[in-house]
Amino acid sequence: MRPNNFADRLCAAVLDKGSRVCVGLDPNLARLPQFLLEDHPPPQAVERFCCAIIDAVAEHCVAVKPQAAYFEALQQEASPTLWAVMRHARQTGLLVILDGKRNDIGSTADAYARAYLRDDAPVDAITVNPYLGSDGVIPFVKTAAAEARGLFVLVKTSNPSSGELQDLRLSDSGKLVYEQMADLVAGWGDELIGEYGYSSVGAVVGATYPRQLAELRARMPQTPFLVPGYGAQGATAQDVAAAFDERGLGAIVNSSRGIIFAYQTRDLPPTEFAQAAQAATVEMKNQINSAIEQNAG
Amino acid sequence: MRPNNFADRLCAAVLDKGSRVCVGLDPNLARLPQFLLEDHPPPQAVERFCCAIIDAVAEHCVAVKPQAAYFEALQQEASPTLWAVMRHARQTGLLVILDGKRNDIGSTADAYARAYLRDDAPVDAITVNPYLGSDGVIPFVKTAAAEARGLFVLVKTSNPSSGELQDLRLSDSGKLVYEQMADLVAGWGDELIGEYGYSSVGAVVGATYPRQLAELRARMPQTPFLVPGYGAQGATAQDVAAAFDERGLGAIVNSSRGIIFAYQTRDLPPTEFAQAAQAATVEMKNQINSAIEQNAG
Repeated sequence: MRPNNFADRLCAAVLDKGSRVCVGLDPNLARLPQFLLEDHPPPQAVERFCCAIIDAVAEHCVAVKPQAAYFEALQQEASPTLWAVMRHARQTGLLVILDGKRNDIGSTADAYARAYLRDDAPVDAITVNPYLGSDGVIPFVKTAAAEARGLFVLVKTSNPSSGELQDLRLSDSGKLVYEQMADLVAGWGDELIGEYGYSSVGAVVGATYPRQLAELRARMPQTPFLVPGYGAQGATAQDVAAAFDERGLGAIVNSSRGIIFAYQTRDLPPTEFAQAAQAATVEMKNQINSAIEQNAG
Repeated sequence: MRPNNFADRLCAAVLDKGSRVCVGLDPNLARLPQFLLEDHPPPQAVERFCCAIIDAVAEHCVAVKPQAAYFEALQQEASPTLWAVMRHARQTGLLVILDGKRNDIGSTADAYARAYLRDDAPVDAITVNPYLGSDGVIPFVKTAAAEARGLFVLVKTSNPSSGELQDLRLSDSGKLVYEQMADLVAGWGDELIGEYGYSSVGAVVGATYPRQLAELRARMPQTPFLVPGYGAQGATAQDVAAAFDERGLGAIVNSSRGIIFAYQTRDLPPTEFAQAAQAATVEMKNQINSAIEQNAG
């Protein structure tokens, strides 16, 4: 029986597997192994690639994060391919976090939430962009509550230009924009706190800004973090250690390109892409676990 | 021959048709005519509903705006249905503005941009959420430039809670958040200004905040506006008149529910949904044109 709360399922999976790794599925056609693209049309190549990665990493990570953009790049074939991959991931017991950064208001936000978070959808949580304020987030929170699913709201993103808006200081409160968002996110999650002390309303906080990551960990102690920016974007295990509490809970760290295209960086034959992804996942799992132990010690 | 610039195609269509109306395609299954849902499975019901609306309104509006969320509510059937509807709209000569509020960074933003804005896609422009800063917008601008397409970046949205973030004042510049975004959007569009003086990088500015709409019109004189909030959300033709220049250019006004579900508000039989949508579109077109004339006179 799985606990009836996304945050609890996430925490239980982390403790059970001894892993804080989320594998990002960014099936960029330009980087897919050539033999797959020669043998199959693009949608089938993407599906086979992602499913083979999933099978190879399932034991060593807690979640996969399909990036909607690379599926939408398949145009009219986008959703059948995305759903097939998500179904396969869920069948292996992995949590599925759809990275769509969706955002809209009222009944439209409801439509997104019901599309992905309702009972018959193979998605455990979705990423949400908060530019529209509560109207754009509450419908996801309500559906998450009703269906035991979760969401991760963008707070401080990992990209170089994230500060153009997020790091600006507000004159009334003296807070930075991302701090204001952090406080809103913590408030939205108040009602959805599970047995491990974490909410099913999480935050996206980039590993590439370790100081802000540590500050936000202290600022929103009941909010689980989805931490992008590891590996290809430059962040290390030391950079992410501050995202975790003394139990090693409170965050999962995502790597996409660094894992799924490890066959390229490790100069392995394309046919070994899945084994390379598995090796990269095990390595990342161990590096993060060591950094957390050092941090605690 | 269509001008090789989205903003010019938009302005030419407005002058040619004498209409500033964009019809929002929000095919919420809960409000679709019952007979369609009895005769067809949901994806086919949505496609038939949208295509019939498109045929009925094509002469009286310049664009349709499919709302991605209601198509994604069809789950694995989402993208085939969305693409069929968009293709049909483009075949009737309408501009297609995909309301996806997409946002991501670097190669991922690129994947979204190429999915929808490249030459073989039946999309003229897409809506984009700017929370991630330039990294999340520039890839769309570049693809729009290369493929003669456009984008509309969220600046001041029409919903009640839009002020929670967008109306906060920044301490360094003294600007409000949405003013800061407006200045960024105008800058991103600088290189894409067409023959009518408008850029292919537009802004979403809600009709429900008419004072801010007028201020933003003055602040970003070369940015075309996509103006939501008309009708069902409460804004009137007088509220939107300030979005237009003396030629009646500079904006298109969207109505979704007020048009596509006009058969319900007008108490017409469901089988007359397309005629009701046509009548609502003609009415809206005339109301906006009158308000612009009064404003100029």
